Amino acid sequence: MATVELVEYDAAPPEVRAIYDEIRAVRKTDFINNFWKGLANNPDQLRRTWEGIKEVMAPGALDPLTKELIYIAVSVANKCEYCIHSHTAAARSKGMTDPQYAELMSVIGMAHSTNGLVTTMQIRVDDVFKVGKQ
Amino acid sequence: MATVELVEYDAAPPEVRAIYDEIRAVRKTDFINNFWKGLANNPDQLRRTWEGIKEVMAPGALDPLTKELIYIAVSVANKCEYCIHSHTAAARSKGMTDPQYAELMSVIGMAHSTNGLVTTMQIRVDDVFKVGKQ
Amino acid sequence: MATVELVEYDAAPPEVRAIYDEIRAVRKTDFINNFWKGLANNPDQLRRTWEGIKEVMAPGALDPLTKELIYIAVSVANKCEYCIHSHTAAARSKGMTDPQYAELMSVIGMAHSTNGLVTTMQIRVDDVFKVGKQ
Amino acid sequence: MATVELVEYDAAPPEVRAIYDEIRAVRKTDFINNFWKGLANNPDQLRRTWEGIKEVMAPGALDPLTKELIYIAVSVANKCEYCIHSHTAAARSKGMTDPQYAELMSVIGMAHSTNGLVTTMQIRVDDVFKVGKQ
Amino acid sequence: MATVELVEYDAAPPEVRAIYDEIRAVRKTDFINNFWKGLANNPDQLRRTWEGIKEVMAPGALDPLTKELIYIAVSVANKCEYCIHSHTAAARSKGMTDPQYAELMSVIGMAHSTNGLVTTMQIRVDDVFKVGKQ
Amino acid sequence: MATVELVEYDAAPPEVRAIYDEIRAVRKTDFINNFWKGLANNPDQLRRTWEGIKEVMAPGALDPLTKELIYIAVSVANKCEYCIHSHTAAARSKGMTDPQYAELMSVIGMAHSTNGLVTTMQIRVDDVFKVGKQ
Repeated sequence: MATVELVEYDAAPPEVRAIYDEIRAVRKTDFINNFWKGLANNPDQLRRTWEGIKEVMAPGALDPLTKELIYIAVSVANKCEYCIHSHTAAARSKGMTDPQYAELMSVIGMAHSTNGLVTTMQIRVDDVFKVGKQ
Repeated sequence: MATVELVEYDAAPPEVRAIYDEIRAVRKTDFINNFWKGLANNPDQLRRTWEGIKEVMAPGALDPLTKELIYIAVSVANKCEYCIHSHTAAARSKGMTDPQYAELMSVIGMAHSTNGLVTTMQIRVDDVFKVGKQ
Repeated sequence: MATVELVEYDAAPPEVRAIYDEIRAVRKTDFINNFWKGLANNPDQLRRTWEGIKEVMAPGALDPLTKELIYIAVSVANKCEYCIHSHTAAARSKGMTDPQYAELMSVIGMAHSTNGLVTTMQIRVDDVFKVGKQ
Repeated sequence: MATVELVEYDAAPPEVRAIYDEIRAVRKTDFINNFWKGLANNPDQLRRTWEGIKEVMAPGALDPLTKELIYIAVSVANKCEYCIHSHTAAARSKGMTDPQYAELMSVIGMAHSTNGLVTTMQIRVDDVFKVGKQ
Repeated sequence: MATVELVEYDAAPPEVRAIYDEIRAVRKTDFINNFWKGLANNPDQLRRTWEGIKEVMAPGALDPLTKELIYIAVSVANKCEYCIHSHTAAARSKGMTDPQYAELMSVIGMAHSTNGLVTTMQIRVDDVFKVGKQ
Repeated sequence: MATVELVEYDAAPPEVRAIYDEIRAVRKTDFINNFWKGLANNPDQLRRTWEGIKEVMAPGALDPLTKELIYIAVSVANKCEYCIHSHTAAARSKGMTDPQYAELMSVIGMAHSTNGLVTTMQIRVDDVFKVGKQ
């Protein structure tokens, strides 16, 4: 039901295969998920997105699991079914426990609720919360 | 510019004051932010929301800072200006460093991008990502 | 801070004035709010939108106040600041009481919360809820 | 396709069964819809959500059908497929007629349109619409 | 899985058939897509929407293909699966090439990303970008 | 009111200055808008975003003005005030006429409306619109 055909490894041009190979190497799995197979219709977009993901999701000041939880939260608020499934699976593979998932869900639910309440009332930002001078 | 008047402590009915007092005690500050003052027009809603926040944001399987990062992520995707400011301030007060904030921002930006790409292509969820039987 | 100039009555071309006159007559007020003054840069869009609003918001199977409550609910979920303010004012002018507004807000908050929870879990629609055969 | 397993009555722990029993009693039906079965993975979240729904959706200053119409409106703007189906079914069971549904749909469509137009033009809120002093 | 029954030509009342006939004539095809068959439950809404679409999507200062690209962009950001599929098909039928589609996707992805980054940082609008005086 | 301080040229570290210099060269102006000054708190994010923008917004299968119209459309649907202002200004500087802007606005308004209607009815995608086999 995608709006594009998925590009399988065997049918992929060399620059796509090279990225598929790198995804497999970095992720230590032969599996290439559909997102990349769709993006591969546009090799520049595939490369740019993969470079970004690799850089952004690497361990840093935040650990990889925390980054997946944030990714799930954005994907839920943005209603991206595929992204919710793929990043929930990624979070589990990075060690997310059931109690952690339950709390993630509770925070997401609460944030949606207060987002809706604040927006209804159009509450003005307290001066004390303003950090930037501009 | 709110659609409601803010209920200040001195003008608040007893059931509202009791919750303001508890917010102050739990948060160890005299400051009551505008969100609560707006909600106080509806004491039941104030009580229910405060009870929920207290329960959900308490330390648990996820630490309080991680919960604030998730809260910011949802609030950004939901475009709630007040919530973004108040939870960014809360995250800083709970120890969020500048490098952590920079990475939070990078993950949020990346998630928005891939959410948009996936949605454009209407990519089908890979079977391997499906956890539930239903 | 609009991206367009507002078209005031005295500077408006005849086809815009005619619609301004009709808005004034239908609403029994001389006041023309900024939305119409912005749309007036594009007289066809102004006419089409006014005709639609007039038809849709008229009393029918749903009373005008209920329609304003629904309008507020959509505008909150769509994060349209102007629309929230203007339709909250319209609802008050059509008789919305403070307790009704408090309940509207509670339903909006609850709906946002369960929308977020359902989306996180990607719950499948129960067969019993499906009405259409297609 | 959910990200969680659904918790059926017979497999549920006692605190979940107690809430299922109450849902059945309040709604006068044996049917427990999938939303609750998903939430039941997190009994605290289940309890908190059910208590909130029971309180918010009860008859009050707004009648139960009006509340369902508002719930549908939010769920549409938030693109929650499950919520749209379940609350449309609930509205019908509470007496929503076809002409009422047609008008609900018209208001939702019109609100989306003007939300989009206002946001494109970034129209400033008229002073007369501002209720709160802050 | 729709919340309404689809109204087929043979079962449609005369005012619906008249619009179906006009859609067929304007589009030079016998095919009526499901959107119109759903709207036909509410003939006024069907007529108003068709009149609007016909007027808005006609060639003008922007060519029909550019209008379809804009329509896809909005539908993606609004997460409307049906609209994404139907307008992507429409764009292809109006001549959208694969390289154009790839660039459309890249712009949509980039816009989502910077929308998310700007919203996270709550960047103030530069004075130079402000066109309207109000 | 930003959540970050803006990084001005004179206070910027060398790697940020280098990107500011390139932005100025590519855009043929000394002006650096606030978005880049906010991103500059995170030089990697600044570089990655600028590289992406430069590549994506360059002339290609779609002309630069068409890309700006698409950018505006996404930014409106995503409710990003800053992005709407900055890309509307960019579109004007690339030659967008008033009639083109009026038509852009009409398409955005219409798309929001039908997005809302389709989502309310949960219309199933017609088979004929499905391009991909998967």
